[in-house]
Amino acid sequence: MSTSHASHPDRLLPADPATRDIARRLLANVEELPIISPHGHLDPAMFTSDEAFPDPTSLLISPDHYVTRVLHSAGVDLADLGVGGHECDPREAWRIFCRNWGLFPGTASGYWLEQEFEHVFQINPDRISAENADEIYDELSAIIARPDFRPRALAEEFDLEVLATTDDPMDTLEHHRALAEDPTFSPRVLPTFRPDAYTKMYRPDFAANVEKLIDSAGEGKGGYEGYLQAMRSRRQYFIDHGATSSDHGTHNADTAPLSPAEAQALLDKGLRGEATFAEALAFEANMTYRFAEMAQEDGLVMTIHPGVYRNHSSSAAEKFGADTGHDIPFQLEYTRGMQPLLSDFGENPDFHLVLFSIDETVFSRELAPLAGYYPSTFVGAPWWFIDEIDAMNRFRAATTGITGFSRYSGFIDDTRAYCSIPARHNTSRRVEAGYLARLVAEHRLSEDRAAEIIVDLIDASPRRVFKL
Amino acid sequence: MSTSHASHPDRLLPADPATRDIARRLLANVEELPIISPHGHLDPAMFTSDEAFPDPTSLLISPDHYVTRVLHSAGVDLADLGVGGHECDPREAWRIFCRNWGLFPGTASGYWLEQEFEHVFQINPDRISAENADEIYDELSAIIARPDFRPRALAEEFDLEVLATTDDPMDTLEHHRALAEDPTFSPRVLPTFRPDAYTKMYRPDFAANVEKLIDSAGEGKGGYEGYLQAMRSRRQYFIDHGATSSDHGTHNADTAPLSPAEAQALLDKGLRGEATFAEALAFEANMTYRFAEMAQEDGLVMTIHPGVYRNHSSSAAEKFGADTGHDIPFQLEYTRGMQPLLSDFGENPDFHLVLFSIDETVFSRELAPLAGYYPSTFVGAPWWFIDEIDAMNRFRAATTGITGFSRYSGFIDDTRAYCSIPARHNTSRRVEAGYLARLVAEHRLSEDRAAEIIVDLIDASPRRVFKL
Amino acid sequence: MSTSHASHPDRLLPADPATRDIARRLLANVEELPIISPHGHLDPAMFTSDEAFPDPTSLLISPDHYVTRVLHSAGVDLADLGVGGHECDPREAWRIFCRNWGLFPGTASGYWLEQEFEHVFQINPDRISAENADEIYDELSAIIARPDFRPRALAEEFDLEVLATTDDPMDTLEHHRALAEDPTFSPRVLPTFRPDAYTKMYRPDFAANVEKLIDSAGEGKGGYEGYLQAMRSRRQYFIDHGATSSDHGTHNADTAPLSPAEAQALLDKGLRGEATFAEALAFEANMTYRFAEMAQEDGLVMTIHPGVYRNHSSSAAEKFGADTGHDIPFQLEYTRGMQPLLSDFGENPDFHLVLFSIDETVFSRELAPLAGYYPSTFVGAPWWFIDEIDAMNRFRAATTGITGFSRYSGFIDDTRAYCSIPARHNTSRRVEAGYLARLVAEHRLSEDRAAEIIVDLIDASPRRVFKL
Repeated sequence: MSTSHASHPDRLLPADPATRDIARRLLANVEELPIISPHGHLDPAMFTSDEAFPDPTSLLISPDHYVTRVLHSAGVDLADLGVGGHECDPREAWRIFCRNWGLFPGTASGYWLEQEFEHVFQINPDRISAENADEIYDELSAIIARPDFRPRALAEEFDLEVLATTDDPMDTLEHHRALAEDPTFSPRVLPTFRPDAYTKMYRPDFAANVEKLIDSAGEGKGGYEGYLQAMRSRRQYFIDHGATSSDHGTHNADTAPLSPAEAQALLDKGLRGEATFAEALAFEANMTYRFAEMAQEDGLVMTIHPGVYRNHSSSAAEKFGADTGHDIPFQLEYTRGMQPLLSDFGENPDFHLVLFSIDETVFSRELAPLAGYYPSTFVGAPWWFIDEIDAMNRFRAATTGITGFSRYSGFIDDTRAYCSIPARHNTSRRVEAGYLARLVAEHRLSEDRAAEIIVDLIDASPRRVFKL
Repeated sequence: MSTSHASHPDRLLPADPATRDIARRLLANVEELPIISPHGHLDPAMFTSDEAFPDPTSLLISPDHYVTRVLHSAGVDLADLGVGGHECDPREAWRIFCRNWGLFPGTASGYWLEQEFEHVFQINPDRISAENADEIYDELSAIIARPDFRPRALAEEFDLEVLATTDDPMDTLEHHRALAEDPTFSPRVLPTFRPDAYTKMYRPDFAANVEKLIDSAGEGKGGYEGYLQAMRSRRQYFIDHGATSSDHGTHNADTAPLSPAEAQALLDKGLRGEATFAEALAFEANMTYRFAEMAQEDGLVMTIHPGVYRNHSSSAAEKFGADTGHDIPFQLEYTRGMQPLLSDFGENPDFHLVLFSIDETVFSRELAPLAGYYPSTFVGAPWWFIDEIDAMNRFRAATTGITGFSRYSGFIDDTRAYCSIPARHNTSRRVEAGYLARLVAEHRLSEDRAAEIIVDLIDASPRRVFKL
Repeated sequence: MSTSHASHPDRLLPADPATRDIARRLLANVEELPIISPHGHLDPAMFTSDEAFPDPTSLLISPDHYVTRVLHSAGVDLADLGVGGHECDPREAWRIFCRNWGLFPGTASGYWLEQEFEHVFQINPDRISAENADEIYDELSAIIARPDFRPRALAEEFDLEVLATTDDPMDTLEHHRALAEDPTFSPRVLPTFRPDAYTKMYRPDFAANVEKLIDSAGEGKGGYEGYLQAMRSRRQYFIDHGATSSDHGTHNADTAPLSPAEAQALLDKGLRGEATFAEALAFEANMTYRFAEMAQEDGLVMTIHPGVYRNHSSSAAEKFGADTGHDIPFQLEYTRGMQPLLSDFGENPDFHLVLFSIDETVFSRELAPLAGYYPSTFVGAPWWFIDEIDAMNRFRAATTGITGFSRYSGFIDDTRAYCSIPARHNTSRRVEAGYLARLVAEHRLSEDRAAEIIVDLIDASPRRVFKL
């Protein structure tokens, strides 16, 4: 602990004294609850091998595009940070980070990093500077060499109860199986079925992926029929390994189904590399519909997060690959797009559909009205760029008046940055406490009811929505 | 009265003590003013027959899609709530409602219901629970059997000065006439000309409606000419029965006029059931323009509220009909769409045009800039999903900096739920007081001026804008 | 000074006492800093001639469409305010303004006017009324006749350090040269290269403008080649006269480049007046790309502000010309539109691109994510309709969590109203102080760091971004 603002017990709570007092009391109900993380991007092998993290840079910087993009915006070459597998001197990258620490105040990433330094590493973040870069690098190196900083030990320390990963349909899930069978490891590490690489004809690896999928899981069937069969088979395989949800990073929110003949024709074009972008999107929309159809049978929760222009900077994409900080949101519509799917499956309360958005405008206009009617539909937590403090408050203020608190997915950390998980979940708990405290202070909600609601939001919602 | 938060005199006012004190003083100027409701969906026959409400469920639940949608989102079958004319056991429906009371906190509907229970029925809303369902049902049944709970008595109790209904152009308006001629009934109950059923070719009843309209009101003319004539005649009939406005629930905000020949050709296609959706929209846009043109002559205020995907859940629409909670907003644009109409009629200060939106993004981007220039144009109050407390605050903050307070329609309750009217108007008064108090507390407005403004907003604006 | 709220030292600061105390301390760091105005619409001849302003109306009302639109919305004829060169009686126009002073409270324009009266003219704005109109007109007339109210004296009084104007590419820039060479005038008055009149084929003067441009600056080349050469030459001429930026009021944010042959073909059609609107937009998009390409060579900062439907009221445009208060924003997208430009030039940290928006929804969805990755890209300050207090706060809350404070353009006053400049910049300083104070009060930022940030935002950002 230190004297930095990151250590203040009232951090993120509202400034108004009476509201803050209420928020403190509400927070006390949930601050120590275990972490339930139904969607994220950690590698499960981390827990089977349980090796020490090699160095501060590869733990905290290189793999986290939330962090590297900020540095890059100030002119830092991504190569110097070890992005996209580029070799870098980890100490030199760390110095770059420390020199640019002044870019982070006010950002969500900066807040999480401060919390990590303060609460995970017990390093006062106010010390970070160009001058102290080497000293802190050495301190961190010593810390991550300690046995209590191995991944499994941290999982206990973080009080991780459930952690879902995001996995390729062809994954063997051997690590998930090993962890499930390991009586010495208590967190539930669950796979998530993410078929994007097999549904997007505009990806260069589409044909190869699909052929491999049909060959190995089509159960002897070919073409579109084999393709659907393979999806069904692999979903079942995932369910058998603990999966409760499938995740779909679609381009847009369209869900118009195709007839089998239309789908077969498009699939053929896609496999030949001849599909137009519009045709690829039509096929993708059909598949979103088909996955919902499969979920009526197998019960997998379905999460959809459309609306991102991937790899916006062509030159950087070529040099560093995907997920390197220049996926840029675009404007989206769900009302018309989701209509075919919802009209056919939306009335089924056993079907769970979580709609995420990175376009804040749809929360009050489309997602809250949809989730406030369809028993299947839940509003996903603010995600990615907008999982930050003010945006999380805007999310609550945009959705609650329309749907209340019962149609919320529960908080989603969606992270590759293991050590940021406690900070992210704690942030969410503080934001919920602050929001509910305002309703209480404005005499819109009794404090007793608010205390029940916050426990429901943090703990019961994700269990209920993700069928955990 | 009770000890629930719904009875607190400071409910909805800002938490900051100094701001709240200002808000309290501002509210005192308007809290007791009579209710002016220039747009809503009550049945005027309610006041001519003045019968007791049959039971709590048919008064408070079945007809209110704001309420039934919330229950449905939790998996309740709309049939069990008596939606769409389905027979239900009212006591059993009431039990369902009470069992699910926990879904409502934080929602606008929940807040209004609490206020109704607290202030109209003198029932502490904190008592509502599965356990107390029958007891409260019996209490409510006894209350609505009392003579002072008949519709006319309540109108006096609510201090209703003006109440506009929404009526079909072919309506005889006999109830409006009877009420106007009744010296024992003081509220002005005015009809509103709502021609949607006669302008939307994509409605199955379009051809039948239009043929009937032309036959009975076309004054011997046929075709498009007779159609326009019939609209003019019926508008005059409405004016003769007290109407001051026409209301248009258009699909989008387009207003491009057609030549008579083009319009005639489209009308013919529409009557034959052969118009495409695009053609239907073109005809609807033309009619929006034509209604504005008629208003130059007859002076009816024109209100437009586009942007809703009606009957989103096809299966529910088939089973329960329209207005059952799954009309979902979509993204909209007004700037280009309204240009033909505004460019031709917008400069006329005697023409009053009120633009509503359910897409909050257009308030600062389009509606406030339009209303801040055109002397004809007013920004409609937040409506439907967004007539809730936080959204009303966002509305003020989005529009005031651009247009000030003078271009506001006045509050619109738009309701079918009679007993929610006082709560809705009171909410609006509290939100205005809170918003103005913030400006005063931030030294952006003097308190004297704020006191004048709040009276203007609550009382003078709707009279002025709706020509009451 | 007076007792009006406009004179209150805490004006615009947050109401919460603890937050306000922090804001006061933060504000003290920047309130007296010189004014840097990197984009605006003053006429540089004002400073070379240094004549007294003729009368209050032509100084404060006629040229300021922010003000005249508000009066017009209440039914005032723009002709009576001297808009668009219409002759008006300035005293009568002033009376109209005073009579309608009650329209302004709550608006950004009203706030600036109050500040001007209070702090520039030392007239208590609470005195403004129909009754006092003549008296105040006489007082103002006496004030502007004083030598210390000439443009140059006011520039010293306002502490103007840098003031950029907006200029036609064919402008001789003689006034800029004269001011630069005048040792008795300290502010830097810089031209800005604004080529819109030469890139928009849908303007009636396009062909004449382009022909003149190529003839005089094409260096003997013709066609598209001469057109590009002329642009390059005139940019260099502007640079030689102190320009550091070019400004582009594009219709939308598209930037797809054309091949030389395609561009030549479109240019030919445009010059013949035969280009469709879509073709005109394609040519404009290509030119946005080409100006960015030129900036790689000559280093001019590029500012882009798309998304406005110009001259919305056709009748008013005919009568009063452009820039008369009815340019209306529309919805826009940047992510796809800017991709060609950014993908080719966005990674260059020496290229500075400032993206403005009048559509608030793109701040968190598109602009902050773009500026948070591309080293070239900065988020422009809220502009035009949304450079008001609440919108400026929303801007901060929408962008900071994603990009922090380092990708901000600095405040832009964009004004034609000379005497409003101090009020506008002071407003920005107060808003920044209030926003940062909230982060400090919520323990998201240390006060020491906030004090550094506010100085950077107000002073260093515009110098850095605009290469001043």
